[in-house]
Amino acid sequence: MFSELAVSTHQRREFIDITEPLGEVLRATGITSGIMTVYSPHTTAAITVNENWDPDVIHDFLLHLSSLVPAHNLQFRHGEGNSDSHILASLIGASTTLIIRNGSLYLGPWQGVYLCEFDGPRTRTVAVHIISDQAL
Amino acid sequence: MFSELAVSTHQRREFIDITEPLGEVLRATGITSGIMTVYSPHTTAAITVNENWDPDVIHDFLLHLSSLVPAHNLQFRHGEGNSDSHILASLIGASTTLIIRNGSLYLGPWQGVYLCEFDGPRTRTVAVHIISDQAL
Amino acid sequence: MFSELAVSTHQRREFIDITEPLGEVLRATGITSGIMTVYSPHTTAAITVNENWDPDVIHDFLLHLSSLVPAHNLQFRHGEGNSDSHILASLIGASTTLIIRNGSLYLGPWQGVYLCEFDGPRTRTVAVHIISDQAL
Repeated sequence: MFSELAVSTHQRREFIDITEPLGEVLRATGITSGIMTVYSPHTTAAITVNENWDPDVIHDFLLHLSSLVPAHNLQFRHGEGNSDSHILASLIGASTTLIIRNGSLYLGPWQGVYLCEFDGPRTRTVAVHIISDQAL
Repeated sequence: MFSELAVSTHQRREFIDITEPLGEVLRATGITSGIMTVYSPHTTAAITVNENWDPDVIHDFLLHLSSLVPAHNLQFRHGEGNSDSHILASLIGASTTLIIRNGSLYLGPWQGVYLCEFDGPRTRTVAVHIISDQAL
Repeated sequence: MFSELAVSTHQRREFIDITEPLGEVLRATGITSGIMTVYSPHTTAAITVNENWDPDVIHDFLLHLSSLVPAHNLQFRHGEGNSDSHILASLIGASTTLIIRNGSLYLGPWQGVYLCEFDGPRTRTVAVHIISDQAL
């Protein structure tokens, strides 16, 4: 099962919680057991799993990323000026695999799934692919 | 096939080799070909693959992470004081997909699978999901 | 379906575009829908997805990695002197999961798949595993 979500971002660097729409995609399939691949078809965005309870966690995350990979570096050559966004996309990663149990995403009590925007604002696509193992 | 492992950690930041218990989970299923998703349902722990021969590799890894993401940052807001642990969890990643061949995990000769503890000591859960492609 | 690619690298740190050989592996199977796991069985190499249009992106990426994880650190203990390579392998990750749609890899218009060499030059192996969901 394959589906695409459209996600609007509002900042240059921003984490958007996509846990709820991913759950809706899953429920619509009726699949109760298997794995879900969540994939960003962009070179300046990524997918991750982290806390979605206290928004200060993501604040601190973005703050630290701004020192790990600053937006500007005079030695960068890429003409679009967003090399930092490309670097962050690969450090976090374009795809994440989640487990499906009892018709729901198997997530820890504090976990949510995020689209990580590193060169917004834009409208991004998140691809979702589910493999069921019900019949196996 | 789904299973959960309990893993005890002993330091705040520590890599625990879980290659052997993952192999035991696989052997108990009798599955000989497919993929295994290894997933951390925690927001301050992660899963990675790296050398499990010379323990100095993990020593050096943790040493370097202490400068990449120091435990303390006066600008962090998150009240629990473990924002560094959350950041490291996403830099390494909550899930890893392994290949199963001939009834064993397909790992390089020096590779092992690690639970990365970034806010221990605790008892952690590692979730394991296997999809067999034997019948396909 | 399982396959191995041999990839020659030429620098100590280098990104090699493997998108085309991965596409060839896929086409040879005739599989039109499912997921592909791309896996590095090495502890000093990794797999990532990033832009493969402007080579300056990878230039800037490698430049920034040289400051994030310098090749030398007098505090490192590992006798082989390549702890930096091990650290980078886990920051980028040993495996990536791609989606297969309509007989092709589902990649964004600027995306390519890379073997990331962090301790070359060597001949590396890239393992490819495909699970089809055509019959499901």
